[in-house]
Amino acid sequence: MEVTVISIGDELLVGQVINTLAADMARILDTRGWEIQRVLTVGDTEEAITKAVKDALATTKVVITTGGLGPTRDDITKKVLCDIFGGKLVEDPATLENVKDIVSRRGFRLNGLTAAQALVPSSCRVIQNRVGTAPIMWFERDGHTLVAMPGVPFETTEMLKREVFPKLLEHYPSDISTARATLIVTGYTESGLAEYIAKWEDSLPAHLHLAYLPRPGLVRLRIDGHHPDSSFIDREVRQYADSLQSLLGNAVVAKDDLTPAEILLNICRGKGLSLTTAESCTGGNIAHELTMVAGCSDVFNGGVVAYSNNVKKNLLGVKAESLEQHGAVSIPVVEQMAQGACHATKADVAVATSGIAGPGGATPGKPVGTVCIAVATPRGVISSTEHFPGNRSRVIDAATIKALTMAITALNSEGDC
Amino acid sequence: MEVTVISIGDELLVGQVINTLAADMARILDTRGWEIQRVLTVGDTEEAITKAVKDALATTKVVITTGGLGPTRDDITKKVLCDIFGGKLVEDPATLENVKDIVSRRGFRLNGLTAAQALVPSSCRVIQNRVGTAPIMWFERDGHTLVAMPGVPFETTEMLKREVFPKLLEHYPSDISTARATLIVTGYTESGLAEYIAKWEDSLPAHLHLAYLPRPGLVRLRIDGHHPDSSFIDREVRQYADSLQSLLGNAVVAKDDLTPAEILLNICRGKGLSLTTAESCTGGNIAHELTMVAGCSDVFNGGVVAYSNNVKKNLLGVKAESLEQHGAVSIPVVEQMAQGACHATKADVAVATSGIAGPGGATPGKPVGTVCIAVATPRGVISSTEHFPGNRSRVIDAATIKALTMAITALNSEGDC
Repeated sequence: MEVTVISIGDELLVGQVINTLAADMARILDTRGWEIQRVLTVGDTEEAITKAVKDALATTKVVITTGGLGPTRDDITKKVLCDIFGGKLVEDPATLENVKDIVSRRGFRLNGLTAAQALVPSSCRVIQNRVGTAPIMWFERDGHTLVAMPGVPFETTEMLKREVFPKLLEHYPSDISTARATLIVTGYTESGLAEYIAKWEDSLPAHLHLAYLPRPGLVRLRIDGHHPDSSFIDREVRQYADSLQSLLGNAVVAKDDLTPAEILLNICRGKGLSLTTAESCTGGNIAHELTMVAGCSDVFNGGVVAYSNNVKKNLLGVKAESLEQHGAVSIPVVEQMAQGACHATKADVAVATSGIAGPGGATPGKPVGTVCIAVATPRGVISSTEHFPGNRSRVIDAATIKALTMAITALNSEGDC
Repeated sequence: MEVTVISIGDELLVGQVINTLAADMARILDTRGWEIQRVLTVGDTEEAITKAVKDALATTKVVITTGGLGPTRDDITKKVLCDIFGGKLVEDPATLENVKDIVSRRGFRLNGLTAAQALVPSSCRVIQNRVGTAPIMWFERDGHTLVAMPGVPFETTEMLKREVFPKLLEHYPSDISTARATLIVTGYTESGLAEYIAKWEDSLPAHLHLAYLPRPGLVRLRIDGHHPDSSFIDREVRQYADSLQSLLGNAVVAKDDLTPAEILLNICRGKGLSLTTAESCTGGNIAHELTMVAGCSDVFNGGVVAYSNNVKKNLLGVKAESLEQHGAVSIPVVEQMAQGACHATKADVAVATSGIAGPGGATPGKPVGTVCIAVATPRGVISSTEHFPGNRSRVIDAATIKALTMAITALNSEGDC
């Protein structure tokens, strides 16, 4: 089933808020093979919302709008949908109860604007929002369905999973199954990888599709298949994924669609190793990536964000001479940071970074983007000096991924500890 | 000038990549008052790209496409644009030189697929991509312009700033000026704030627009104005921003469109205070937010990600008795973490968190979302126990913002140290 998502909100168009919600929704719909065909992002104007809704209803059976349902004046989605689908705004007693309940659970008082959340178009059916005050509204016209959901990512992902998607699946039963496999590959550029696997790619049957999803330092290869026969398509995707893995050998660091942080945590868990971090230029981002993974605490001890030289010396035991002689961005310092973090947090494995994220801080011979990375394991320390292109955020991101993949590769190549 | 952005790529529709680029582009265009009217996100199919391009050219003068220009087979944008605008794919010698130059600077070898980047439609004018291998293509038809740019965010933001936007501004000179002011407000819910400032909002003239941009723990209020007379609209926006600030008093923690991390760093810098972090449940995210700000190193020393109790004890000096008696998620522990971080990193101000981000880890009386936060300043320690709704990522995000805003409020209320 194809879906159009309409993301409503001026904040998305002026770049003050990034549209993370559309991606979250895609991942939920994808679990049952539903595809977002288009995402239309429009501002809070009657004209833009009306045009987007009409366009969407003309091309896809299912349309989900998000946003513009808040209590303030710039939120006009409800009024516009009422104009499109007919009827008038009426107070829904169940919604008012829900609003009162949510407001009191959060310890706020009900004001007039929040109470106005209970006004809904008479042409819709309300699905109670269990995690927020904006009601979810289900409209139907000519066999097409439009569901209006809030713009708050947490509320909409939660309610999409819990109630809206199950109701849509019931309304539009499907007989097409989807199968998917992902391989995480390191050590190749996107084009180098494409060249290496060109013959294999030529052998793919028409019902399978390969996509390349590069990030700095790794490429995700995704094989997709759709077919009425679920066991056939599962087997096909598995067989082709296996043959691709044989072809790529050790370059495949994971077979599931995992983040580098998830892969590293799994490897450490499997080997019974604890993990720590010592971050200068990545400034806590590696620890953040690791701790975004639920259940990481059985492996990850914590770490040190060693931004200043004093913290490098006092908490990680980096030698003053090394800092003076080689500078903070150097192999001797980053290796001592990794070993010092293992010592300070009593961990088996450490990932350490020290670099120049920019825009300032460059010195002769060490341009912006220079990052020294070290990985300490029970077998010793490995290290590397990298040069990443791009602005501050991209250097931090690239250094984070490279540090994690260096640790993955080091632990994988060591075999069983 | 209104712009349509077409974001091309299956990876955006299946949720494997979040569309950060459209937001980055919006912020660049916004500096000169250009507005993105719509963002159309479509997959890598000829039909979807063709429809989106034709729709966009019919409604806006300027269309920018991003993505689908890579060297692999799933990238078909170039071919589709060639079909739409006519001509055929020809090798552009200047592009081939640029590709060779970029590839050799990155230390890779040129393969057939990368060399194919130099093929461009004969109907376009090429703008050399200085930071990547995919050429940027400028097409014109009936007074409308389409610029095809890569999907790699860094390449496109860099080239948009450096060359594409200046060329567009030259091509479409404008006589409308934009003015904007942002106030960052804490201590109000979105609807509570709207109710409090309703009268002020009623007094806004038609050429000014107010938008509410809530995040957990703060609301950004943005006043926008557009007018041919730039000094008039600048003055108008400034006057209304000043009157709104007078009305809200101390609830306004910043007058620019800054992140909480930027506001806190500025306050510390102004007071000559150094800053550290001690994070359990936020797992490095507060340090990450601080270190994403260029130039933070004159204020931010670094910090400790104290995920395990051992790290809390060994690096931050939290007492074993406190952990046993009150648990890690408690006011006594989080206050010791803040004080311990000041001591360990020799900092003046510390922000500390200890909580249950979920989905596991809840204990009787401490449900998922319970987060204890402490702020240590030279005047003492303040602390608070919060209950955040939502999933792991939302709890971490909300705790991060709350910890930063608590520190902002504490330092602001202390006056000059």
